[in-house]
Amino acid sequence: MKFIDLRSDTVTNPTDEMRQAMFLAEVGDDVYGDDPTVQKLEILAASMVGKEAALFVPSGTFGNQLALFTHCDRGTEVILGEDCHIFEHEVGAASIIAGVHLRTLQTTHGKMEINRIKHSIRPDDIHYPETSLICLENAYSSGSVVDIDYMKQVYSIAKDANIPVHLDGARIFNAATYLKTDVKELSQYSDSVMFCLSKGLCAPIGSILAGSKEFIEKAKKKRKLLGGGWRQSGFLAAAGLIALEKMTKRLQEDHENAQYLANRLSEIPGIHVDTSQLHINLVFFQMTDMRRSPEEIEAIFKENGIITFAPDEDGMMRFATHYWITKNDIDKVIEVMKTI
Amino acid sequence: MKFIDLRSDTVTNPTDEMRQAMFLAEVGDDVYGDDPTVQKLEILAASMVGKEAALFVPSGTFGNQLALFTHCDRGTEVILGEDCHIFEHEVGAASIIAGVHLRTLQTTHGKMEINRIKHSIRPDDIHYPETSLICLENAYSSGSVVDIDYMKQVYSIAKDANIPVHLDGARIFNAATYLKTDVKELSQYSDSVMFCLSKGLCAPIGSILAGSKEFIEKAKKKRKLLGGGWRQSGFLAAAGLIALEKMTKRLQEDHENAQYLANRLSEIPGIHVDTSQLHINLVFFQMTDMRRSPEEIEAIFKENGIITFAPDEDGMMRFATHYWITKNDIDKVIEVMKTI
Amino acid sequence: MKFIDLRSDTVTNPTDEMRQAMFLAEVGDDVYGDDPTVQKLEILAASMVGKEAALFVPSGTFGNQLALFTHCDRGTEVILGEDCHIFEHEVGAASIIAGVHLRTLQTTHGKMEINRIKHSIRPDDIHYPETSLICLENAYSSGSVVDIDYMKQVYSIAKDANIPVHLDGARIFNAATYLKTDVKELSQYSDSVMFCLSKGLCAPIGSILAGSKEFIEKAKKKRKLLGGGWRQSGFLAAAGLIALEKMTKRLQEDHENAQYLANRLSEIPGIHVDTSQLHINLVFFQMTDMRRSPEEIEAIFKENGIITFAPDEDGMMRFATHYWITKNDIDKVIEVMKTI
Amino acid sequence: MKFIDLRSDTVTNPTDEMRQAMFLAEVGDDVYGDDPTVQKLEILAASMVGKEAALFVPSGTFGNQLALFTHCDRGTEVILGEDCHIFEHEVGAASIIAGVHLRTLQTTHGKMEINRIKHSIRPDDIHYPETSLICLENAYSSGSVVDIDYMKQVYSIAKDANIPVHLDGARIFNAATYLKTDVKELSQYSDSVMFCLSKGLCAPIGSILAGSKEFIEKAKKKRKLLGGGWRQSGFLAAAGLIALEKMTKRLQEDHENAQYLANRLSEIPGIHVDTSQLHINLVFFQMTDMRRSPEEIEAIFKENGIITFAPDEDGMMRFATHYWITKNDIDKVIEVMKTI
Repeated sequence: MKFIDLRSDTVTNPTDEMRQAMFLAEVGDDVYGDDPTVQKLEILAASMVGKEAALFVPSGTFGNQLALFTHCDRGTEVILGEDCHIFEHEVGAASIIAGVHLRTLQTTHGKMEINRIKHSIRPDDIHYPETSLICLENAYSSGSVVDIDYMKQVYSIAKDANIPVHLDGARIFNAATYLKTDVKELSQYSDSVMFCLSKGLCAPIGSILAGSKEFIEKAKKKRKLLGGGWRQSGFLAAAGLIALEKMTKRLQEDHENAQYLANRLSEIPGIHVDTSQLHINLVFFQMTDMRRSPEEIEAIFKENGIITFAPDEDGMMRFATHYWITKNDIDKVIEVMKTI
Repeated sequence: MKFIDLRSDTVTNPTDEMRQAMFLAEVGDDVYGDDPTVQKLEILAASMVGKEAALFVPSGTFGNQLALFTHCDRGTEVILGEDCHIFEHEVGAASIIAGVHLRTLQTTHGKMEINRIKHSIRPDDIHYPETSLICLENAYSSGSVVDIDYMKQVYSIAKDANIPVHLDGARIFNAATYLKTDVKELSQYSDSVMFCLSKGLCAPIGSILAGSKEFIEKAKKKRKLLGGGWRQSGFLAAAGLIALEKMTKRLQEDHENAQYLANRLSEIPGIHVDTSQLHINLVFFQMTDMRRSPEEIEAIFKENGIITFAPDEDGMMRFATHYWITKNDIDKVIEVMKTI
Repeated sequence: MKFIDLRSDTVTNPTDEMRQAMFLAEVGDDVYGDDPTVQKLEILAASMVGKEAALFVPSGTFGNQLALFTHCDRGTEVILGEDCHIFEHEVGAASIIAGVHLRTLQTTHGKMEINRIKHSIRPDDIHYPETSLICLENAYSSGSVVDIDYMKQVYSIAKDANIPVHLDGARIFNAATYLKTDVKELSQYSDSVMFCLSKGLCAPIGSILAGSKEFIEKAKKKRKLLGGGWRQSGFLAAAGLIALEKMTKRLQEDHENAQYLANRLSEIPGIHVDTSQLHINLVFFQMTDMRRSPEEIEAIFKENGIITFAPDEDGMMRFATHYWITKNDIDKVIEVMKTI
Repeated sequence: MKFIDLRSDTVTNPTDEMRQAMFLAEVGDDVYGDDPTVQKLEILAASMVGKEAALFVPSGTFGNQLALFTHCDRGTEVILGEDCHIFEHEVGAASIIAGVHLRTLQTTHGKMEINRIKHSIRPDDIHYPETSLICLENAYSSGSVVDIDYMKQVYSIAKDANIPVHLDGARIFNAATYLKTDVKELSQYSDSVMFCLSKGLCAPIGSILAGSKEFIEKAKKKRKLLGGGWRQSGFLAAAGLIALEKMTKRLQEDHENAQYLANRLSEIPGIHVDTSQLHINLVFFQMTDMRRSPEEIEAIFKENGIITFAPDEDGMMRFATHYWITKNDIDKVIEVMKTI
């Protein structure tokens, strides 16, 4: 039985074409720089985001934390949104790996106030750590896509203060798709960018960290230190190449399905969909009148072939659309939801 | 020439009685537990804040960071106010010494929102660091004294979640003086408390970290690790004893002088005094119509025997009253201020 | 043209059977515990080394450092050999990830002196860090296999002192093959063991960390923190299963080839082979009379289809045999070597 | 009753002249650079060891660890003796504060083998951490004084490799006294040097870290981070000035007393004195025929007004001579020892 898995776009299995490419992949020992498929992937990835060089890493968390570790001296301060992925969902890794001081600012739909950012940069004083990085995230974990002008403003503040900007672009192709622009238009306002080949792009494993040649050179050694030096990773790179070449072009479909899902959910009484941040493939909604326990709800979906996380106590849920979710699947989800 | 030094209460030289006590102090090697004066100080300090044990440390920053280092496993998360001293003025030390993830919350007059604190405690999840500490500060660096009921509420949330509370009480005797209460009424809502013997209490060097016996035992070894194991520190402890026995009782005078200074400043056109947080000995005000450069203003004061920091670009200044500032001194300051 | 790659056994491409298995692998999102192939691999791996549980990690360095990070509180001390892989070849990671103090002891053929280990365990004292781990390595990076009795003695010292033992078993199946014993006979004298599925076992990517259920539970969360939480890693696990089921049984062949290579090299005048540590698939030798530059030597091999690292200044070289090196290949290497 | 305290030279109470100087000391807030006595001390200290600048710090451990923290990027490697104070007696602090990888080498009478040092410097390689510092110690904790030529050789190796040298000179004035040379002759072969004003020099608290202006500037901010920013530390500096001006000239007396003590001990049957490293004020000896328990021995001394640490299981003891130990005291010690 095929399940409809709405938990996240990380659950996406690779496509048949990816399996085929993996089977045929030419590989080598990448620690020695011998894997041709990895090299091809890194070159393509760098060029797509307009950077000099790129590095293939085991996960989005790995890529983000490696960026902090490479940009920032230990004990310096990083400015970032209080609910961004790096702060909220990466197990506190920044306090272990980079060893940095995190200065979190409030966000509205993924944006920190421009003025707050400016005032959060530390002047030179014996009481203060040095500000060493500003982090942006686009699309934001909340589902919001941040506009290019905002990114440009932040980048300009950073450049005036001689501080680098890292972009957590785990779903940057979703953001570019929403903004109907090339991904380079976004990544140009950053010194380094991380994006995932898994998630909506369906590769089984792996993310990319891109930046200047010098930055990637340093990051490569630190990747080894963190245990991310792979041997024959060309297999994974082969799937990653298809993710970049083909899957980046079909995300509009996931977004349309998310809109469709949102509309259908809205029709159900007792369900309130948050459309203010419905930009990509993530639909957040609330069951305002929850008559069953979260666990029961999860169970009923499961019985009907649908995998979700249980809603939280306030009835909040998130559904993600992706390659393996069709319009028909959504209709089925709606049917089940109506019974709940 | 005797200068009127308004920069901070950290500039307070010890009293003659303190010099006398230091001269006569009985001392020993405190690393071997042989210094009787240090022992006397630690016992008195612990009892004054109602804790089992106390430790004499080189500074307030040392005491706060030692508290984090002792309470928290590396990589865990600490909840604290976004403008508190530990986050704002301790050089990012928490990312070096304790190695913790800092979750800063907005404050109003030194208070974080009770609900935000509650929701910031992390549930058990593979994506989350563990919450290991909540930090309070009283009096707050902004000059605000936080009420006992707030402290009680935070402590109760913490206890429900089985999380310790550390109180940065650098100026806790000022807070207790303002609240007309015993300092124990405040410190009871914390598992550990740090307070300074320097600042308003005039001792030349040193702060106290107090808590349970077990906590202080652990902190003692970590103090050694951090290079804070002193030899014949009884000299400093002798001054500290007078700070605790005598100087804690005269802080009302500094507060009254601060009120007097605030009132006199308010009479001067173009000066706006922030009275909303004028609880202790710190007067914050703004020169709304600044006709001279910050450096010129600092220089004019200096020529007249008054030491201040230059105002910032917006004309913001802070004056601190203390043992060595009399009402007459304040009158003189006002005269000079009028000419500026 | 097929190259004869003698640099290391890490260069081993997967077998055709592995590619096939990867193609057909059933996968899922392993962060959510949904990947059946990973689960199968972890269960098999744990049982083969006689531990309760196992974790699939991106590399040997990742597994070793994760073990330190999981066993040791930061600031504690680890006893290990001065030339072991963890100290010598992991980029100083122990000072970043686990944050531990390394107490390196001299080794002879991979063994530290039993008495030195005993005396290196720290007693309780305010000047000392706590000893939190002893690391063994078998087979040792030098090629030596360490005997079971030595491991037993170290384990017994550790148990007496209530200290865990971690075994870096990157090539533990080579060690067991050499000792003609089951791998469990070795791993029983450790609390955790890391071994590689790549290297001689030919899997493209990945290593295993095994230990008690509780240990692996903790390690899993820390793996996520370090960015080693993979999505559809069943592809790699599929190859890993074949590595464990089949490739572990054929290592004798590599060892015999290494002996053959050593013998043939010894026949060449001016080459001295170190046979004292020739236990597995690693042949160390010295060209005592080097008439060409290291770079020239590397180049001549390359022209003849043989990949090696350049010898060091003293003429020291290491050749590794593995699945893709046949006896014929060795004969060819000898021919070329004779011309040098 | 006046005790004869042989445990260490750290137990030295300050002289009456020091107490007097402390009483009269002119002080200020040193965090603001306002303490004239501290400034005087730092200038004198720097000039005595021939460095551009110096910093007054709370302890020897603080000064050494601050040196590592200032010289070394986190994750880099430090070469030092396996039984030196920094590695052996500073609670593992280097793994917390500087976050460095320690490469300990065997020592003979305080010296590492020159060749081993040379070969321990890491070449550039993706598997290696960078070597960032070499640490020397003189006099060594074992009592040995290291000769100038050795220091020169190590310094020259370090300079060739562009690596700084830190000298732990806790008892550097003892070393210079033994070598009948100026202390600058030793400190010239280091980029930074730490020495103690307490210990044989009798100041109650404090050590000095000296080096280039730029180095001390950086160290000053890191001292603040570590909680070592003192306020009115001129009191302690006043004693420190006398330590430097007067007490450095009388150490020969302590050394002669140590020789006298060693000779007298040697006369007692069953006592073996290690004279091979008897260079300064530390006498190491063994009671080869111990008829009482270590605790009994400690107790008998105590009853007779003599404070010692209990011997270890093998009967090893260390006696330290210092300002407060006279020849008569030694005779008394010998009398008691004979009864044991």
